Amino acid sequence: MYQKSEQEYTMSENHQVILLAHGSSDPQWCQTFEQLAKPTLEAIPESAIAYMELAEPSLDTAVARAVRKGAKLITVVPLFLAAGRHLRKDVPVMINRLASQHQLRICLAPPIGQHPALGMAVREVVSDTLATQSLMPEAITS
Amino acid sequence: MYQKSEQEYTMSENHQVILLAHGSSDPQWCQTFEQLAKPTLEAIPESAIAYMELAEPSLDTAVARAVRKGAKLITVVPLFLAAGRHLRKDVPVMINRLASQHQLRICLAPPIGQHPALGMAVREVVSDTLATQSLMPEAITS
Repeated sequence: MYQKSEQEYTMSENHQVILLAHGSSDPQWCQTFEQLAKPTLEAIPESAIAYMELAEPSLDTAVARAVRKGAKLITVVPLFLAAGRHLRKDVPVMINRLASQHQLRICLAPPIGQHPALGMAVREVVSDTLATQSLMPEAITS
Repeated sequence: MYQKSEQEYTMSENHQVILLAHGSSDPQWCQTFEQLAKPTLEAIPESAIAYMELAEPSLDTAVARAVRKGAKLITVVPLFLAAGRHLRKDVPVMINRLASQHQLRICLAPPIGQHPALGMAVREVVSDTLATQSLMPEAITS
């Protein structure tokens, strides 16, 4: 489970962050994740986005890039709301393979949906949706 | 695309919100989504969670409950980060069927990942992850 910390952490070039999304052949899917990752990528220069499958950069590509930049430790934060088979099985296998291949440590964080910030964000999204809908009832109709 | 609104919207019993998650046979998956929905469910009494498949309450069940409570309009907010095949095809079909079956309007909002609040939340999660990791390097190791 996530733990709230008051301490700010300063990154170094030895430590890189990879935001890992599922990936899709649909460019719009990837666009949504790039948008989602943007505030993090802007705040933390030592961070990058990667896709588990069906889109580039792959996790393999992103890890190789991080290693070239001097990473000795990579933290993978899954842009998944909850842990399904991919996060419980497939991603740990990929991570173990890459850690051994590049001789570095790779830590897998819990899926973002387990962090309380996400629940608060969902509440904000719902409030905004309802407010927008009351102004423009047809705007979000399916 | 989502639009930010300053206006607070007041719900009525005619208007219900359903937070729609994918669903899984794994109870831990559903637990994560219930946690994620909690701040919204607490803030908006006219809201409920439902699952697209593999878990209860299903969307059918949640819509039927909302109708019994007097709903004439239901807003479905997908607890999905991006729109894949499910949100583009399967969910609209389910929604059209239920709207016609119960003779009410059902609006499908964009996936939550398209709202800027989610990107900000991801940034907070990543900062927290790094801060926690620096205090307890083994705590989030895969």
